[in-house]
Amino acid sequence: MSATPIRTEAPATDPSSAPHPFDEAIRLEALADGRFRGATHAGFWNQVGPFGGITAAVMLNSVMLRPERLGDPLSLTVNFAGPVREGGFSVEPRLLRSNRSSQHWAIELVQGPQRELAASALLVSAVRRDTFALTEATPPPAPPAAECARTRHRSNVTWLDRYDMRYLRGRPLHENEDSVTHLWVADLPERPLDFASLAAICDVFFPRLYLRRPKFVPIGTVSLNVYFHQPAATLARNGARHLLASAQGRVASAGFFDQEGQIWSDARELLATTHQIVWFRE
Amino acid sequence: MSATPIRTEAPATDPSSAPHPFDEAIRLEALADGRFRGATHAGFWNQVGPFGGITAAVMLNSVMLRPERLGDPLSLTVNFAGPVREGGFSVEPRLLRSNRSSQHWAIELVQGPQRELAASALLVSAVRRDTFALTEATPPPAPPAAECARTRHRSNVTWLDRYDMRYLRGRPLHENEDSVTHLWVADLPERPLDFASLAAICDVFFPRLYLRRPKFVPIGTVSLNVYFHQPAATLARNGARHLLASAQGRVASAGFFDQEGQIWSDARELLATTHQIVWFRE
Repeated sequence: MSATPIRTEAPATDPSSAPHPFDEAIRLEALADGRFRGATHAGFWNQVGPFGGITAAVMLNSVMLRPERLGDPLSLTVNFAGPVREGGFSVEPRLLRSNRSSQHWAIELVQGPQRELAASALLVSAVRRDTFALTEATPPPAPPAAECARTRHRSNVTWLDRYDMRYLRGRPLHENEDSVTHLWVADLPERPLDFASLAAICDVFFPRLYLRRPKFVPIGTVSLNVYFHQPAATLARNGARHLLASAQGRVASAGFFDQEGQIWSDARELLATTHQIVWFRE
Repeated sequence: MSATPIRTEAPATDPSSAPHPFDEAIRLEALADGRFRGATHAGFWNQVGPFGGITAAVMLNSVMLRPERLGDPLSLTVNFAGPVREGGFSVEPRLLRSNRSSQHWAIELVQGPQRELAASALLVSAVRRDTFALTEATPPPAPPAAECARTRHRSNVTWLDRYDMRYLRGRPLHENEDSVTHLWVADLPERPLDFASLAAICDVFFPRLYLRRPKFVPIGTVSLNVYFHQPAATLARNGARHLLASAQGRVASAGFFDQEGQIWSDARELLATTHQIVWFRE
């Protein structure tokens, strides 16, 4: 036997068998009464709470996990009532009404012994049909994602490391002429697109105010709205390829500013339109 | 006495003392437990139920009437779960969370002994503050409302008679090159603007699909979203003057189409941005 310390190799693991951080973050444990237990994830932390997009994804996921859920998500509104604190939470989807081909859900995310409400949401799911289709919006001009460089950031918030973002237009904390932003975005590491990850990606944009003023101020999304325009099969077809995203603010006034955004597939299908209204400190 | 039948004059009434049809339609009677009783109004009828805008206004009004309500409406999402039937209904606002300067509300509109849900809503109210302000959107080009002719309609739905609409761009049931619509709009008879009437006006646009196809098909708004960008004083300043409204659809796909809209004051302040997603039958 040699006196040399033996350097044990870590057991060879298949990286594909390790859970993806996004799946870890939206993981929910079903409780007896249709509610779910989840927990915040250190990898999706923002300044004073989780990335809003991951909270939206967790709330959407609770409906996806309910066995009586009908069709695909069509419309999602998440109102952020207060910061989600680090640790466990309860996600409580309630089926308000079920029609022949659509359902109306309300979802609450509560924490602590006082059951403090952190976020409330409304979701409509619907069976999508093959119909007349027309896209009036146009995707932003962009070279293929593979030809664009990943944008590096100098922030200590962890959620930014969960996305490969390749900014094409819009420089934050500068006085741009307008707030228009274009970027390629994908989960990091790569992950096939689904409704939960698409909902989260609707919230990846820099705050619109930062595109018009070179001044950092605290901000917080109050309400996030997402309309899903394609069935699950179209999302699956995109796989893990980058999405082309654009956003613009229309107005800042009396303590709040807005944002409108569009999320396009790699094949230039309009997957989602999204809107939010955001509080800011002067 | 003469045998000639006496033609009695109707008693002279002050027209300003008669309730405005909009106020009649959103009138709510407070019940003991924070709920309200209201009823549909024949003057705001659409094809198979009330005009969606008046339902949104009634739900917003229920929060305005709650004594603990804080600040002005900031964000309103109304999900239409099924047709509102003619007759009475119960509007049930629930305060989910009250913060220092904002509140989160959920509202349900239910009907009948089975308490069937017709619409559910989320509303955020907030105390508005004087802050940095910037409007990046631009109002549509338009001559003064007084120089534009009122658009006559040939429809038997009654709610269209509750608005003075002066269309400037966008001809319904024609194959327009795009779905962009511009119009002047005001309550008829005239009525000073408030949050309830502004919410209703967010839903006055022709369905976007009708701007791209010369084909009438049944449609129904599934979810309506409104962001209010100005405090009550700005709305009051507009008084009964016409509002300048614009709308555009981005996409129709798999049984649903969307709409984005902006509502500007006569003085060209952006009062509200609005979004909806609408079901259509092929």
